[in-house]
Amino acid sequence: MSAIKELRVGVVGAGMMGADHVARITHRITGATVSAIIEPDEQRAAAAIQASRGAQSFSRIEDALDAGAVDAVLIAVPGQFHEPVLLTTLEADLPILCEKPLTEDPESSWRILEAEQKRQHPLIQVGFMRRFDAEYRQLRELVADGTAGRLLLLRCVHRNPAVPDSYTQEMLITDSAVHELDIAPWLADAAITSIEVRRGRRNSLSPAHLNEPLLVLIELDDGVLVDVEMNVSVQFGYQVATEAVFEAGLARIGQPAGLQLWQDGRFQIAEQQSFRTRFQQAFDTEIQAWVDAARQATIAGPSAWDGYKVAVACATGVRALSTTGAVTLDLPDKPAFYAGV
Amino acid sequence: MSAIKELRVGVVGAGMMGADHVARITHRITGATVSAIIEPDEQRAAAAIQASRGAQSFSRIEDALDAGAVDAVLIAVPGQFHEPVLLTTLEADLPILCEKPLTEDPESSWRILEAEQKRQHPLIQVGFMRRFDAEYRQLRELVADGTAGRLLLLRCVHRNPAVPDSYTQEMLITDSAVHELDIAPWLADAAITSIEVRRGRRNSLSPAHLNEPLLVLIELDDGVLVDVEMNVSVQFGYQVATEAVFEAGLARIGQPAGLQLWQDGRFQIAEQQSFRTRFQQAFDTEIQAWVDAARQATIAGPSAWDGYKVAVACATGVRALSTTGAVTLDLPDKPAFYAGV
Amino acid sequence: MSAIKELRVGVVGAGMMGADHVARITHRITGATVSAIIEPDEQRAAAAIQASRGAQSFSRIEDALDAGAVDAVLIAVPGQFHEPVLLTTLEADLPILCEKPLTEDPESSWRILEAEQKRQHPLIQVGFMRRFDAEYRQLRELVADGTAGRLLLLRCVHRNPAVPDSYTQEMLITDSAVHELDIAPWLADAAITSIEVRRGRRNSLSPAHLNEPLLVLIELDDGVLVDVEMNVSVQFGYQVATEAVFEAGLARIGQPAGLQLWQDGRFQIAEQQSFRTRFQQAFDTEIQAWVDAARQATIAGPSAWDGYKVAVACATGVRALSTTGAVTLDLPDKPAFYAGV
Amino acid sequence: MSAIKELRVGVVGAGMMGADHVARITHRITGATVSAIIEPDEQRAAAAIQASRGAQSFSRIEDALDAGAVDAVLIAVPGQFHEPVLLTTLEADLPILCEKPLTEDPESSWRILEAEQKRQHPLIQVGFMRRFDAEYRQLRELVADGTAGRLLLLRCVHRNPAVPDSYTQEMLITDSAVHELDIAPWLADAAITSIEVRRGRRNSLSPAHLNEPLLVLIELDDGVLVDVEMNVSVQFGYQVATEAVFEAGLARIGQPAGLQLWQDGRFQIAEQQSFRTRFQQAFDTEIQAWVDAARQATIAGPSAWDGYKVAVACATGVRALSTTGAVTLDLPDKPAFYAGV
Repeated sequence: MSAIKELRVGVVGAGMMGADHVARITHRITGATVSAIIEPDEQRAAAAIQASRGAQSFSRIEDALDAGAVDAVLIAVPGQFHEPVLLTTLEADLPILCEKPLTEDPESSWRILEAEQKRQHPLIQVGFMRRFDAEYRQLRELVADGTAGRLLLLRCVHRNPAVPDSYTQEMLITDSAVHELDIAPWLADAAITSIEVRRGRRNSLSPAHLNEPLLVLIELDDGVLVDVEMNVSVQFGYQVATEAVFEAGLARIGQPAGLQLWQDGRFQIAEQQSFRTRFQQAFDTEIQAWVDAARQATIAGPSAWDGYKVAVACATGVRALSTTGAVTLDLPDKPAFYAGV
Repeated sequence: MSAIKELRVGVVGAGMMGADHVARITHRITGATVSAIIEPDEQRAAAAIQASRGAQSFSRIEDALDAGAVDAVLIAVPGQFHEPVLLTTLEADLPILCEKPLTEDPESSWRILEAEQKRQHPLIQVGFMRRFDAEYRQLRELVADGTAGRLLLLRCVHRNPAVPDSYTQEMLITDSAVHELDIAPWLADAAITSIEVRRGRRNSLSPAHLNEPLLVLIELDDGVLVDVEMNVSVQFGYQVATEAVFEAGLARIGQPAGLQLWQDGRFQIAEQQSFRTRFQQAFDTEIQAWVDAARQATIAGPSAWDGYKVAVACATGVRALSTTGAVTLDLPDKPAFYAGV
Repeated sequence: MSAIKELRVGVVGAGMMGADHVARITHRITGATVSAIIEPDEQRAAAAIQASRGAQSFSRIEDALDAGAVDAVLIAVPGQFHEPVLLTTLEADLPILCEKPLTEDPESSWRILEAEQKRQHPLIQVGFMRRFDAEYRQLRELVADGTAGRLLLLRCVHRNPAVPDSYTQEMLITDSAVHELDIAPWLADAAITSIEVRRGRRNSLSPAHLNEPLLVLIELDDGVLVDVEMNVSVQFGYQVATEAVFEAGLARIGQPAGLQLWQDGRFQIAEQQSFRTRFQQAFDTEIQAWVDAARQATIAGPSAWDGYKVAVACATGVRALSTTGAVTLDLPDKPAFYAGV
Repeated sequence: MSAIKELRVGVVGAGMMGADHVARITHRITGATVSAIIEPDEQRAAAAIQASRGAQSFSRIEDALDAGAVDAVLIAVPGQFHEPVLLTTLEADLPILCEKPLTEDPESSWRILEAEQKRQHPLIQVGFMRRFDAEYRQLRELVADGTAGRLLLLRCVHRNPAVPDSYTQEMLITDSAVHELDIAPWLADAAITSIEVRRGRRNSLSPAHLNEPLLVLIELDDGVLVDVEMNVSVQFGYQVATEAVFEAGLARIGQPAGLQLWQDGRFQIAEQQSFRTRFQQAFDTEIQAWVDAARQATIAGPSAWDGYKVAVACATGVRALSTTGAVTLDLPDKPAFYAGV
């Protein structure tokens, strides 16, 4: 297949995430245009159309595909709605960028893998954008090149200023820790073997139904121990950081940076307030990489197999929420279809 | 004039800077294509054509214009060759992004102003990319909003790891300090009234014909004193940083950031090694802003008048190189044509 | 009892720690003199006598006491030799500064408590010097004053560049984590209820008989979860640091400080290389506080009861080394004798 | 002369500085006792006596000397009262620690030198305490060992939160910059040859009669250029910092350190608020060094000759306050008497 000059992208879902992607494709990256908005909510759809340069509006993905309006599909609806959109788009043989999670449980994710394997080659890229963050990439290189010795521990923190009331206890795993369940194995080039969850003193500023912070302990098959502080009501800011402990060194990413201010008796640096600013560069790089790849009908990032592995890890983590001690994670063999990705 | 859908940019000069801009327009920003490379050196021209998506090659700007191959022109040849390209492109009434300096002396810069004023509105944007750097913008806002009190002093450093043998003593002003001659008045929203140059102990690692570091003292018409440490053989890295001293606060930009590493007995952060990494984001933002504006036949950044002011400041700074004490800077009134920019 | 003008201190043990204390008392703190060195090794004894201002040499504590040569005793021999020195000195009713641990097991520590309770008031201060470190004190105040909300988690790291071959697996708990077993409850003003030990990938640079790093998970009776990374072959330096996670804030102590150097392409700060530099100020402050108190026949720091609690915690931690899951810690009631300390 | 066992110090002046020294000698350093307070103000004298361990009160230095009450004298009255105390104490042949300045003008300082040269060896140490600060010492070593190349520039800032109304324009030089006039030549191991003063925009928060901040440009005889930002109404804190620019490196001292706090949307470190906390360690080290030396009837720090040189530099700096351009500094040859100090 020869390269598409300008990729016509159909964006499925025009909520906050979809709207961000429309703005990104329209104003910050090259080689793509938002040609279709697939969104049943009329007000959201109208706003996204307005923000694009001439996209058409559809209420169902099938209509956009039938109209021949898109070369590729970006899925930005909530996870529970992913499966049918994925299956329909796979059927149409188009490249897909699917926001995380691939789907919400291992069974449905496995169905996606089965459907994708009927195509000639992988079409689905999953939106684990941290892999495109410059610091995570540097850290992965440091692990790989061994200049600080072998990796021993990964110590991660995931701190949110606050979460909405709709955020559930399970979402500590499936919506937030999900990123570490992808990135820790990716950094270490290893697979998860077990997950344990420990609980700290409850934060009284959390929504009433939440019992957090948690300490999630993840073991990898090369012996590396990963801990993740899940802490989603910290008030002071959004902080996603990792310390990688090596045999002869230590690396830290995600630390405060930018304008330094002395005022009111102290030295200060503004902390991030949201993943949108913390990871804006990563999102831009991710979507640009996907567009460049999709124009060649390929992918350039985490595959559906990666999405499946994280679905299994999330299910294991959710079990660990109500289990004392470590819960073992079992994974089928990787299908040959995904050998190259 | 209605908006151009995809701006066809002719890049004049395919040296390091031109090649960077070709890569930038082709791979990182949206709404523009490199349609023409104007470069007499065949090897450079071929490399740039290769790096673009289908640009044509021309050896002279006139040929590209005659062929109707471009909607806008980006000038990336050395400063001594700017004037004829600027005049020819103005004649064709096309938007221009001219890398700094506008031209190399106040007289030729004034001729550019005269030619531009024959057009209906300003067409020239000058490539002072620091104005698009996120930290400089934050700092300018802090000056403007007054939350730390009025600005009192600007303390700038411009440190290069090394310079080539072709770098002359005058270039300390015209090639390096030139950026501070633009950005300091922009930050302070004030005009330069005098420049003094003091000399420190000579760095024995500098090329033999250079006598540096320098301390350049710039006075602004609101009393703010600016000092600039010009230090271009520091070996350890590329460092462009500013401290802004306010009545009740202090701000610092350009400090080390990114992955933090403990190894070999110390905590460490890699320092920048070149303006290309230090200001990559600024360059991308600058060119995107210019493309967006040029599609509307306007500019979105420093004007030719800003370029002229810096040309005058450079000439004053060069005189200060061989003068004891401060040299006064005189500027004609701003032409009405530039009222809005 | 009226205050002693100049406290005559007998230092038991003139190894590295004892020698440090002799230098400290002789040159850096006020109100005390080293009047006796109790050390059977003649060479060490001679060096310590030389370093003092006129101390006498004794090979046994009994001889120093019989000679009436001391007003107070500082015990700096290895832990297995503490019990008889403590009992003898208690018998003589003299103030004691006992380097950690009080003794090496809960049973012998309990015997010390019994002996001490026969005196009129507590005489023993235990050498947990972190309580005298300025940053730990600031952190404890922050916990107590509640300005950042209630404490939720304590995240501690204990990293040594290397340990000698004589360092055993148990010493990860009894010699190193022992400090956190004292300081974490002190910071949180709470008691330990259980300890779990998790193991990361083994550091191949550790002595052959060690299996570390460890992650030690300590639960406190107010729900606060404490984790301690025990990592004693990190090569790059000595790092003792804590992050305290609050309901609405986060504090970090033990970070790199001091002269900042840009060289060889990077920004760098020297990391500590040993507890002697990291905690020199804490040791000075601790001994000065003890001297000031001992002159009034009292103590000004962790009591024998604190020493006993840590002995129990160490025994629990050692069991956790070879146990899956958390090991519960049981403690008798605090004797009324220790109500005030 | 054999060593004095416990140095009996007479403290002249029991204002803030004298009271600090009384507390220091009484509680934090060894080998000395405050045996006499020489202070005519009865209330201050009583407070100092109370804070000491049994000092006697005298209203005149002569009385303390006649009573044989002191082995050494620490002068902590304002500079204009130094000369008679110095001359009287020299006459008594006792070691002196004289707070800066030695005296307030070159002529009276020269008289002190003449009087001191009648003794057998130098007796006066001047209280430039920065020389005892650990970071300044590290920086001086870095200059001396040449690992970062030769020193090129020293860039100093002296920022105070505020000054009292009694602080005059001249005191910007004689009370504040005076420290840099001592420390810059000491760091660089060179002598001052000229001083220029430039003025920034006036801080409207300064007392009405002050026109500051200033930029003081000091040239050394090895070509090193030193600039000092004098800025004494910055509100946000007390900041004394230096950047040393080398041929192949850069060092920075005096940066924020200590507990790091994330709260209210930002990362923050408390800035120093006064020289008393910023330099407490330096003061302790200085006085301990002086006590140790004075017990041997010698000095261990800046000599009266150093004090004289700074007096000349201050006089030159004061002239530079009202002069355009650089004012040359002339110094007589160093008397042979001071060869060793």
